[in-house]
Amino acid sequence: MERQIFEVHKKVPFYEVNTLNEWHLSAMLNGMLAVADDQLDATGAGDTMMHDLNMGWVITQYHFDIKRFPVSKEPVTMTSWADSYNQFFFYRDYALKDAQGEELVHIKSSWVMMSFATRKMVRVNPDIVKKIQAPQVRGVKKFLRIPQKDYSQAIHKPYRVRYFDIDANQHVNNVHYFDWMLDTLDMDFLTKYVIDTVDIRYEREIHYGSVPESYVLQEPDPEGTGITTFHAIKTGDELNTECQLHWHLRKA
Amino acid sequence: MERQIFEVHKKVPFYEVNTLNEWHLSAMLNGMLAVADDQLDATGAGDTMMHDLNMGWVITQYHFDIKRFPVSKEPVTMTSWADSYNQFFFYRDYALKDAQGEELVHIKSSWVMMSFATRKMVRVNPDIVKKIQAPQVRGVKKFLRIPQKDYSQAIHKPYRVRYFDIDANQHVNNVHYFDWMLDTLDMDFLTKYVIDTVDIRYEREIHYGSVPESYVLQEPDPEGTGITTFHAIKTGDELNTECQLHWHLRKA
Repeated sequence: MERQIFEVHKKVPFYEVNTLNEWHLSAMLNGMLAVADDQLDATGAGDTMMHDLNMGWVITQYHFDIKRFPVSKEPVTMTSWADSYNQFFFYRDYALKDAQGEELVHIKSSWVMMSFATRKMVRVNPDIVKKIQAPQVRGVKKFLRIPQKDYSQAIHKPYRVRYFDIDANQHVNNVHYFDWMLDTLDMDFLTKYVIDTVDIRYEREIHYGSVPESYVLQEPDPEGTGITTFHAIKTGDELNTECQLHWHLRKA
Repeated sequence: MERQIFEVHKKVPFYEVNTLNEWHLSAMLNGMLAVADDQLDATGAGDTMMHDLNMGWVITQYHFDIKRFPVSKEPVTMTSWADSYNQFFFYRDYALKDAQGEELVHIKSSWVMMSFATRKMVRVNPDIVKKIQAPQVRGVKKFLRIPQKDYSQAIHKPYRVRYFDIDANQHVNNVHYFDWMLDTLDMDFLTKYVIDTVDIRYEREIHYGSVPESYVLQEPDPEGTGITTFHAIKTGDELNTECQLHWHLRKA
């Protein structure tokens, strides 16, 4: 079966960049998700079909490799394709290229299907994945196992869930978590280092009116040119997400 | 001189809508500003020229008329054009139409030019406005004078400025103010009423690390089908913005 790669050309919106003119991680991910959403709609496997089946996609984990963040107004080509699926997991890739065709960002992701009736995970529906031409595989793909850390002494900040954070699913769009995670690091850190890998695992959704806390720990690389940050977002005792970012020193 | 109308076609991003599937006011305004920015870049009056002149545009006031908010994935046509300019003010309009060509949103705006050297307002530079074919006028356009209210007893919430709120200008992108203003209203209000007009006046920028407070007062219309909300954002004693929104009851 031929892999079906969906492609969107766009310019990085000037209002979605940080102080260094780089596309925000969260905004970039939203842009990637829109490419996949366009593909699902175009193949008839989009919202309409999912609503009819009373089911939804739920992200479980992302892995990002980032060579460079595209900058304000830079023209980029964003692609997405179904990698494969097994009984319970659906795997999707996303890639972002610059105008010279060089890949700047690659994302691997793992999804499950949830029944809205039971709020439980169900087997992947083959009618849907056939429409998007995902090859069936037997094995389960390995994603990084994010180490469980002791956050009891970690720096943390509260994030009262705002009206704007809630989407049409009536809970927090989990892409916002990246903003809450990065905001726990100070501006000095964020201008000195830049992210090269992201591993995030989603555990439990967050609702309007909650006040989750975003925790961060830092572990410098032995050779001193990079640093790993470990993040957890918790609402009370409940874990919402955990994440591991690797950063390297920006070039002067 | 022919008016030069710049036009962009897009779909409302599914990740920029509220719980009722409507495009967020802030996201919609960002989309409109991007159309104007495209026009400025296309005519050679964009960032490059402004940086060379060591000047920037500063918004002073917007007026919005909103017939209907476009919804998730709805195709829209967004346009912007220079209305006119006088010695100190530059006026720009924005319009958003649906697929049938019906105008859903119209925005009028008033801008000044600031010298980055003195941080003061300067006369409108005719070299720039000629490039975008703005007709010169004598008079000053009237925008609504937003009434000064006593906010001492008003409902208010603090908004710690986050990393994500800061843009490449190193201060808060003032489009975010709309999210802070709307979030002071509760979900019941926001699902019962919908905005039909917006008047906002910008006073003073907000910096990283600040904790502005967003204040709101409500005044029901005499006939009971609408309501006006008055908003102020203040950092300490300093006024950052004031705004007046009119809302009508949503149709059942």
